[in-house]
Amino acid sequence: MLVVKKFGGTSVADKDRILNVAKRCVDSYNAGDDVIVVLSAMGDTTDDLIEEAHRINPNAPKREMDMLLATGEQKSVSLMAIAMASMGAAAISLNAFQVAMHTTANYGNARFKRIDSERIRRELDARRIVIVTGFQGIDKFDDVTTLGRGGSDTTAVALAAALHADKCEIYTDVDGVYTADPRIVPNAKKLKEITYSEMLEMATLGAQVLHNRSVEMAKKYGVELVVRSSLSLEEGTVVKEGAKMESMLVSGVAADKNTARIALVGLKNEPGVAFKIFNILGKNNINVDVILQSIGRDNRKDISFTVSEDDADQAVALLEDQKGSIEMERIECDKNVAKVSVVGAGMQTHAGVASGMFEALYNAGINIRMISTSEIRISVLIDEDQADRAVKAAHDWFIED
Amino acid sequence: MLVVKKFGGTSVADKDRILNVAKRCVDSYNAGDDVIVVLSAMGDTTDDLIEEAHRINPNAPKREMDMLLATGEQKSVSLMAIAMASMGAAAISLNAFQVAMHTTANYGNARFKRIDSERIRRELDARRIVIVTGFQGIDKFDDVTTLGRGGSDTTAVALAAALHADKCEIYTDVDGVYTADPRIVPNAKKLKEITYSEMLEMATLGAQVLHNRSVEMAKKYGVELVVRSSLSLEEGTVVKEGAKMESMLVSGVAADKNTARIALVGLKNEPGVAFKIFNILGKNNINVDVILQSIGRDNRKDISFTVSEDDADQAVALLEDQKGSIEMERIECDKNVAKVSVVGAGMQTHAGVASGMFEALYNAGINIRMISTSEIRISVLIDEDQADRAVKAAHDWFIED
Repeated sequence: MLVVKKFGGTSVADKDRILNVAKRCVDSYNAGDDVIVVLSAMGDTTDDLIEEAHRINPNAPKREMDMLLATGEQKSVSLMAIAMASMGAAAISLNAFQVAMHTTANYGNARFKRIDSERIRRELDARRIVIVTGFQGIDKFDDVTTLGRGGSDTTAVALAAALHADKCEIYTDVDGVYTADPRIVPNAKKLKEITYSEMLEMATLGAQVLHNRSVEMAKKYGVELVVRSSLSLEEGTVVKEGAKMESMLVSGVAADKNTARIALVGLKNEPGVAFKIFNILGKNNINVDVILQSIGRDNRKDISFTVSEDDADQAVALLEDQKGSIEMERIECDKNVAKVSVVGAGMQTHAGVASGMFEALYNAGINIRMISTSEIRISVLIDEDQADRAVKAAHDWFIED
Repeated sequence: MLVVKKFGGTSVADKDRILNVAKRCVDSYNAGDDVIVVLSAMGDTTDDLIEEAHRINPNAPKREMDMLLATGEQKSVSLMAIAMASMGAAAISLNAFQVAMHTTANYGNARFKRIDSERIRRELDARRIVIVTGFQGIDKFDDVTTLGRGGSDTTAVALAAALHADKCEIYTDVDGVYTADPRIVPNAKKLKEITYSEMLEMATLGAQVLHNRSVEMAKKYGVELVVRSSLSLEEGTVVKEGAKMESMLVSGVAADKNTARIALVGLKNEPGVAFKIFNILGKNNINVDVILQSIGRDNRKDISFTVSEDDADQAVALLEDQKGSIEMERIECDKNVAKVSVVGAGMQTHAGVASGMFEALYNAGINIRMISTSEIRISVLIDEDQADRAVKAAHDWFIED
């Protein structure tokens, strides 16, 4: 069996953790598997390097930042090969050049274009454990690129796809995907399986186990993902197409507290207003989530929407600047909101999930401020201080009972 | 003018020193020069990485050590490009892959085979300062190699040769090559010029300004070297063929205290004894310097030789092991010796240097234990505690007067 195993920065933060990961991988190799290991930079290395660069030049060129940051993963992979050698295993570390992981030239946020499988295949054929730098690539100029947030997960999935691996294991500090955050809902259950679409919705909704880009890529290429813990031997959660739903309508409940609601009150009721608003936000790379527009009356209407809390101040400032061209009474911004969502592929074929959600929250005395839905998700915007209670209520309703 | 400027680890050890080096290079660039900068890893980075690896595995594979160590220079060059960008200069960092610095696959001690000049030439044509990682290369498998001690000097000279640079400036913490160590001989003089051969003898003899390999390569390709300080604007010393000798017979006096004398006493006076001794040392990579053999008598002879003090214990142990096949009375080892040498291309055509040296030491009451000469050098082995006095005496004799 060919397995890609990805370990994050925490799992390789020091000597002992490196040896722990090395042992796990060598055990799998000794059991007969072909093993590809993808690593992030050790611990806080990436943040430390960014800080070091910014102390020299706060406007460091992105190309040079990527050249700098790529040293972090190269250090992890070589130390890992050194650790495996101490266990008698034949292991070899490879960086993005050596594998030939081709990306766009979009420094700091590059996308994979093509991965050569030849070198890795040759090393696997020689019965070597292949340890590859996550997070990085090379562009058409032979320059170093990095993939941005969640980059190492994406590297692992991309390699699994390119080499037709049997599975791609993502090792984290939790032992799988749960029906809710166990810190909020103590009897949350670990899921054995989940579909890509559900995982995507869960990832967006604050269950930060896997990064969206990696799940999207896994879905596209049909790579079977396994989320499991680097510290225990528990089996983890399998993410794949047509995952068995264990007869559950809803597979997870999640809260995203890093959200803010912006309301533009008293807009002129004329065509093009929404376009102007969301065009200016889009141009500035501000992602808008839920959008709600009131019914126009007296030639006036309100538009409210949510953005990430980090973007809220910039969004308000940008819209204030537009007051000349967008006529309105005022802008409101509320950061004390949270988005609570239930996700489940089952709700595509079952009615009544939305009404169940509303009933559960009503019973808990929680006021809903906005509603948004997708095929497999229902989200509500509520006051932030009620978020944990809302998650518990929804979890009780759909999963406990 | 195309100039290669090489800065060692001390010169780029922290933010302020990086900015200092950046400014020097940008000044040269703004004055119209085409500038290639070669950097070592920052401060103690290389030693720290070696220690980190050896804590995980004392027998770390050499290939993986090179992969690990190469991150040090990549960090320096990217931070340097970031520093230069803050000064408004167009600068780009390149690693060994990007330049295509091809070496042998001899990990930890690789040799250059071929350097592509195309990428660097293209960047220079675009009026960019090109910052290249010293010390490293790639082999025919696309694996990372390192060049061993003095590697960054060698990288600088190799690039200067490949790109036909007008000169190669080696920046150090001293402002040039002196007739003797100024800490021992306060009125030692800085040389304006020195020949490659003299520099080679000086380097071997403890004047650790330039590494031998880089001087040898500079000689082979006729690269004009300049040794100068990274902290002052002094002109430094030019190393080139046919350097003017400023009418000096001797251009330098140096002492090497890191030397030990080993004597094999009472060897059987028969053929093959010397071969056996130096064969076993050579096989174990122990370099032997001065060799002296006594005249055989009573079918017995003595052989004494010098090795680096670091190798002395191993050499003695290896020879003790051979006592079965090499018959001898005893092995003596004396670490309290030093080699003092005078170097000068002028002595090729002038007799009397040897006798001057002996006279100077005799006047100073210093006993000579061994003598060795080359075309442009005379070395004597003396007691280590007399080394500084011997250097002063020889310097007085040949250079002051």
